[in-house]
Amino acid sequence: MPDSSLLSSRKGDHIRINLDENVHSSITTGLEAYQFIPKAIPEINLEDVDISQMLLMKKLHAPILISSMTGGTPEAEKVNRNLAVAARECGVAIGVGSQRAAIENPALAKTFSIRAYAPDALLFANLGAVQLNYGYSVDECRRAVEMIGADALFLHLNALQEAVQPEGNTRFSGLLDKIEKICRELDIPVFIKEVGWGISSEDARRLASTGITGIDVAGAGGTSWSQVEKYRIEAPHRARIAGTFQGWGLPTALSLELVHAAVPDMILFASGGLRDGLDVAKCIALGATLGGMASPILKASVISEEETVLTIKEIIEEIRICLFACGINNLTSLRNNSSILVKRG
Amino acid sequence: MPDSSLLSSRKGDHIRINLDENVHSSITTGLEAYQFIPKAIPEINLEDVDISQMLLMKKLHAPILISSMTGGTPEAEKVNRNLAVAARECGVAIGVGSQRAAIENPALAKTFSIRAYAPDALLFANLGAVQLNYGYSVDECRRAVEMIGADALFLHLNALQEAVQPEGNTRFSGLLDKIEKICRELDIPVFIKEVGWGISSEDARRLASTGITGIDVAGAGGTSWSQVEKYRIEAPHRARIAGTFQGWGLPTALSLELVHAAVPDMILFASGGLRDGLDVAKCIALGATLGGMASPILKASVISEEETVLTIKEIIEEIRICLFACGINNLTSLRNNSSILVKRG
Amino acid sequence: MPDSSLLSSRKGDHIRINLDENVHSSITTGLEAYQFIPKAIPEINLEDVDISQMLLMKKLHAPILISSMTGGTPEAEKVNRNLAVAARECGVAIGVGSQRAAIENPALAKTFSIRAYAPDALLFANLGAVQLNYGYSVDECRRAVEMIGADALFLHLNALQEAVQPEGNTRFSGLLDKIEKICRELDIPVFIKEVGWGISSEDARRLASTGITGIDVAGAGGTSWSQVEKYRIEAPHRARIAGTFQGWGLPTALSLELVHAAVPDMILFASGGLRDGLDVAKCIALGATLGGMASPILKASVISEEETVLTIKEIIEEIRICLFACGINNLTSLRNNSSILVKRG
Amino acid sequence: MPDSSLLSSRKGDHIRINLDENVHSSITTGLEAYQFIPKAIPEINLEDVDISQMLLMKKLHAPILISSMTGGTPEAEKVNRNLAVAARECGVAIGVGSQRAAIENPALAKTFSIRAYAPDALLFANLGAVQLNYGYSVDECRRAVEMIGADALFLHLNALQEAVQPEGNTRFSGLLDKIEKICRELDIPVFIKEVGWGISSEDARRLASTGITGIDVAGAGGTSWSQVEKYRIEAPHRARIAGTFQGWGLPTALSLELVHAAVPDMILFASGGLRDGLDVAKCIALGATLGGMASPILKASVISEEETVLTIKEIIEEIRICLFACGINNLTSLRNNSSILVKRG
Ligand SMILES: Cc1cc2nc3c(=O)[nH]c(=O)nc-3n(C[C@H](O)[C@H](O)[C@@H](O)COP(=O)(O)O)c2cc1C
Ligand SMILES: Cc1cc2nc3c(=O)[nH]c(=O)nc-3n(C[C@H](O)[C@H](O)[C@@H](O)COP(=O)(O)O)c2cc1C
Ligand SMILES: Cc1cc2nc3c(=O)[nH]c(=O)nc-3n(C[C@H](O)[C@H](O)[C@@H](O)COP(=O)(O)O)c2cc1C
Ligand SMILES: Cc1cc2nc3c(=O)[nH]c(=O)nc-3n(C[C@H](O)[C@H](O)[C@@H](O)COP(=O)(O)O)c2cc1C
Repeated sequence: MPDSSLLSSRKGDHIRINLDENVHSSITTGLEAYQFIPKAIPEINLEDVDISQMLLMKKLHAPILISSMTGGTPEAEKVNRNLAVAARECGVAIGVGSQRAAIENPALAKTFSIRAYAPDALLFANLGAVQLNYGYSVDECRRAVEMIGADALFLHLNALQEAVQPEGNTRFSGLLDKIEKICRELDIPVFIKEVGWGISSEDARRLASTGITGIDVAGAGGTSWSQVEKYRIEAPHRARIAGTFQGWGLPTALSLELVHAAVPDMILFASGGLRDGLDVAKCIALGATLGGMASPILKASVISEEETVLTIKEIIEEIRICLFACGINNLTSLRNNSSILVKRG
Repeated sequence: MPDSSLLSSRKGDHIRINLDENVHSSITTGLEAYQFIPKAIPEINLEDVDISQMLLMKKLHAPILISSMTGGTPEAEKVNRNLAVAARECGVAIGVGSQRAAIENPALAKTFSIRAYAPDALLFANLGAVQLNYGYSVDECRRAVEMIGADALFLHLNALQEAVQPEGNTRFSGLLDKIEKICRELDIPVFIKEVGWGISSEDARRLASTGITGIDVAGAGGTSWSQVEKYRIEAPHRARIAGTFQGWGLPTALSLELVHAAVPDMILFASGGLRDGLDVAKCIALGATLGGMASPILKASVISEEETVLTIKEIIEEIRICLFACGINNLTSLRNNSSILVKRG
Repeated sequence: MPDSSLLSSRKGDHIRINLDENVHSSITTGLEAYQFIPKAIPEINLEDVDISQMLLMKKLHAPILISSMTGGTPEAEKVNRNLAVAARECGVAIGVGSQRAAIENPALAKTFSIRAYAPDALLFANLGAVQLNYGYSVDECRRAVEMIGADALFLHLNALQEAVQPEGNTRFSGLLDKIEKICRELDIPVFIKEVGWGISSEDARRLASTGITGIDVAGAGGTSWSQVEKYRIEAPHRARIAGTFQGWGLPTALSLELVHAAVPDMILFASGGLRDGLDVAKCIALGATLGGMASPILKASVISEEETVLTIKEIIEEIRICLFACGINNLTSLRNNSSILVKRG
Repeated sequence: MPDSSLLSSRKGDHIRINLDENVHSSITTGLEAYQFIPKAIPEINLEDVDISQMLLMKKLHAPILISSMTGGTPEAEKVNRNLAVAARECGVAIGVGSQRAAIENPALAKTFSIRAYAPDALLFANLGAVQLNYGYSVDECRRAVEMIGADALFLHLNALQEAVQPEGNTRFSGLLDKIEKICRELDIPVFIKEVGWGISSEDARRLASTGITGIDVAGAGGTSWSQVEKYRIEAPHRARIAGTFQGWGLPTALSLELVHAAVPDMILFASGGLRDGLDVAKCIALGATLGGMASPILKASVISEEETVLTIKEIIEEIRICLFACGINNLTSLRNNSSILVKRG
């Protein structure tokens, strides 16, 4: 059985490494190839642009997800609080990082408990899907959900991250059946997410058959978890293996397009390298319901609550201005509307 | 009611920022992808190349427009005078900057009054189209025209610029009808222009139905007005929003091609990032009647009258040499003649 | 008759130049254009990924070839020993450098004798094919094979390298017939390899008719032998000729694709610019049986036995992780499976 | 009537500027996009590669033209002598620079007189075609030819160069008829060349009807004559006009392909930006009979006779090695054989 103090100190490492080292993928999201076609005559008023929507019975003021990030340490607790306050203030969705440490050691649960700060927010619990091959069942999923009063559960897929770790959990065989079982037994929606290498068409089709509610493609082009692990590994030859995978993965835009074509009726989120409101809006035009960000919001959250709020408001305003300048009033007109994008090159 | 001293000090800021800061779009005009196919045997004489034409009953010696720029401050007055003298000396068309400040405060009218210096020039008045949603009607348009003895009126569209400003005029709803009304009621031709983000096919088709006489696509690739505003905004998070839009807009070449295809009979001007006579000539080959420039001519105009004249003569000579080396005698043979261009890449 | 001390000192030069100078091709392998399509749900366990295979009756633990490099000097002897130990420890195939020096001077044979260190390894002897036009026959080939107890013989083709050398062996006429004769008379398999400029479709078809067992395309994008020779040539004008060919050759990926299409049943190895396990895996997906590397392994081998072993284990682990993250269990599923690659740009 | 001392001092300027300033086109020849497909098994001997050919009854040992460059000053005389000696030693074709100065002032004829140093060389006289519009007739052409004992006459076309010069000869009207007349009246072959901006399809078709024997496309990508003139012009605004044309012209490879397709039976030379034997060989594969170079050979010629010879021998050897490594024996097999090239990107 893993040592939960190891798990939580790992989370501490993660924040530090994410802030201090070059953990960026060596490829780009592909979103930069898309450009909006503005309307010089928008024929609408900026004040009338409404980017709210209902999702899983919750009202979102903007199509933004604060991606699953952290928990388990005092530092993480502070980050989570700032994120939660910002989610509340800005009316956006939010996820916590993997709750495994707190499942192993319930004393850590409070570092994940953000519901108090964001009573109405759409809130996602988080566990590694691979844990279902290491003894986890619907019980642990339920505990994760209850721990934070979540509206839905993210099971994340991170095969490469596990593989580059010296003692990673690399038994991914038979996971589909186990995910199906969780979907059947858990009474709240299950979402699947990657952590930065994207979901392929085939993944999407196979996952769709398990009964999940949605997918966050979490593609390549932003934070690279093999890079993060590279900085945690001490043996130089092992670290170099991790470094070799810096360009790995399906770019976020490509993954989103593939998955959207493969499972057109699935709820899709897009994350991985989104850096501003234009990126979020592009993902929605390409079929996503929410755009998620981790790294840029983490950077704000270690400064202050206010900085976190301002950062998210900035993204929201960028989305609104983008829609305004394209003559689009609301998300329904934006979603799937790839006719407002041109692709260069 | 806006404070006209604010408006005119804003114009002062604009000149300074345009001269001192990086206000360049992060994308290119697309004109660089076009290359002329020279004729080694032009079979004409350079002295016979004639790039004059009649436009709105005025004789132009060269297909150049000094784009709408300024007015409202003493500095602007000097700039306008230098521009006007150069327009006269070189026989090119010229516009003034937005006259709203002088509409609000008639004492400022003299800073726009360039007719005295350029009695025969083709002269364009200028107002923001959006003002039609903020109380302006054909009266203000008439006053702007009369203020400078203009031959035509530019109504500019700048939705994004208004949107990134903390208190911008962002009600663009219903503008098409109001533009149509102006076209009907004003006795001189109305032209529509963007200010650096281009006109789309759909914009062009909708505008065509209002009765305007012409369109200046004013596309992306040159001066970026979100960048200009970025340097005027004090709150860092607001300034960052503006900065996010540095790559916004339809590149000038693309916008020109789209609009030309959408409304082939409309008089078209092209501006936004044109930097020499070759760019002007390319725009004409792609369907424009005039090529407009702002920033490069502004830089000359703050130096002296003579520098302004020399700068425009340089552009004229580049156009003439370009035509000569392509074996083309006049603008009629150049216009719409995209067979003399190759597109790379 | 050439002076074997010249030949062996040339080999000493080669190692030094390869380590100290820029001997890299100015073009790339083309492998960088390929990207794997990962499976977020691999549905396998990393521990079950098996990259072993049988080749020429030998068991290989990984599809890696330590490419033909050296021999003939004391320094080379040490390098060869470290390479041989690593081949044994890692279970990979290995070749020695051209054995001509030891054919001319049998006293040098021991610098090539690596069988003692790698009793079970798949081992390739090496001679320049062009020597068949300079007096060599099946006898010399047999001596080369016996000298090291080889399982197969590489005849290398290096026309450009010979041509840029002041006194290179540049009579390549009639070689095909002589290669055919060797294939008929030698009782072990004959493989043909280039040394860094690739094999074309036409080469492949012509070679196939000689009865060879396999081809190592050894394409451009890695070590450039015209560059190596450039640093050995003293006369500046001759050195510049060599330098002119830095971008010469068929890129490894292109050569592999051409040859695979031309002779689909031939055993193919790919080398030339492969730099990590991902490159090896890409070559196998494009049709190769083994991926070969010279320069990166040379660099490790001049440090120590242990460094050599670690370097190859790193590559092996990269291949295994790559397969795992693509949901592939073994080489049979990887080989020729270009559907797991996307090509960019 | 022009002052011949002006003409000859201009030639002195030209050499200095060509050696000291950045007179390179801002575009490339396009030859870099082509790559040879080598033969690993060339099945020929390097010593048997024969790149000689007969042209205009003269034997050329290599398909190289020392392009028309200079004359008129003592410095030019020295350059011409070194070039002539190299043409003789290497067995290549050679042209002199524009002989107009010596037509105006016969005392300068000796600075062009290279026949003494290269009795058997294929030798081209040179005059600007536009002079036919400024009083020159077949008489002047004959004098130019006789002055140097030329085998053929180059009439060069340089419309853009004339146009950027303050007092250039820019009457190009009616030249085609006059060229036809020269062809009819002169008893040696007339060739047309550009000077660095290329010949278009339409130019080629029109020129073909005049009775010329051949065309040197002299395309863009090498020396830019608008840049050279830029450094000679004193008025900054005029100099900037010249600078605007740095990217002007049809790239050499494109011009060669266009002209070859338009007039497949015309003798073609290619020059403009060729920098080594590979470039020459590419041009021949694309349809040329000779590849010409100016700037690289000028640089050698101001050093010494020996350096000039070595430079050309280097290019010759590069051509021979290129053919050898492609398995090609002679120019007949190379010419028009674009199947030995791949085009990238
Ligand atoms: C500091 C940090 C911690 C993360 N931790 C988790 C996690 O515990 N569980 C998870 O599913 N994803 C985690 N992610 C991945 C993100 O949720 C998301 O999938 C990724 O695409 C965000 O990319 P970005 O940083 O480029 O915006 C983390 C990302 C970061 C930057
Ligand atoms: C300093 C400056 C002031 C401008 N002011 C106005 C203006 O008041 N009204 C308007 O319609 N356009 C204005 N423009 C935009 C230009 O008229 C034109 O549309 C734009 O495309 C010129 O781009 P360029 O600077 O890249 O040449 C201004 C441009 C500049 C550089
Ligand atoms: C130092 C060194 C020596 C080599 N010597 C030989 C040789 O003797 N015989 C041969 O067939 N190839 C020789 N090669 C070429 C390699 O076997 C192989 O064909 C080449 O593609 C490896 O490229 P890489 O260095 O980019 O991995 C040598 C390569 C290197 C780097
Ligand atoms: C120094 C110099 C002088 C030249 N003078 C002439 C000339 O007098 N007449 C002519 O036809 N071309 C002249 N050229 C042009 C070359 O003949 C040739 O057309 C051109 O394409 C060579 O380009 P390169 O320098 O890039 O090799 C000259 C070129 C150079 C570099």
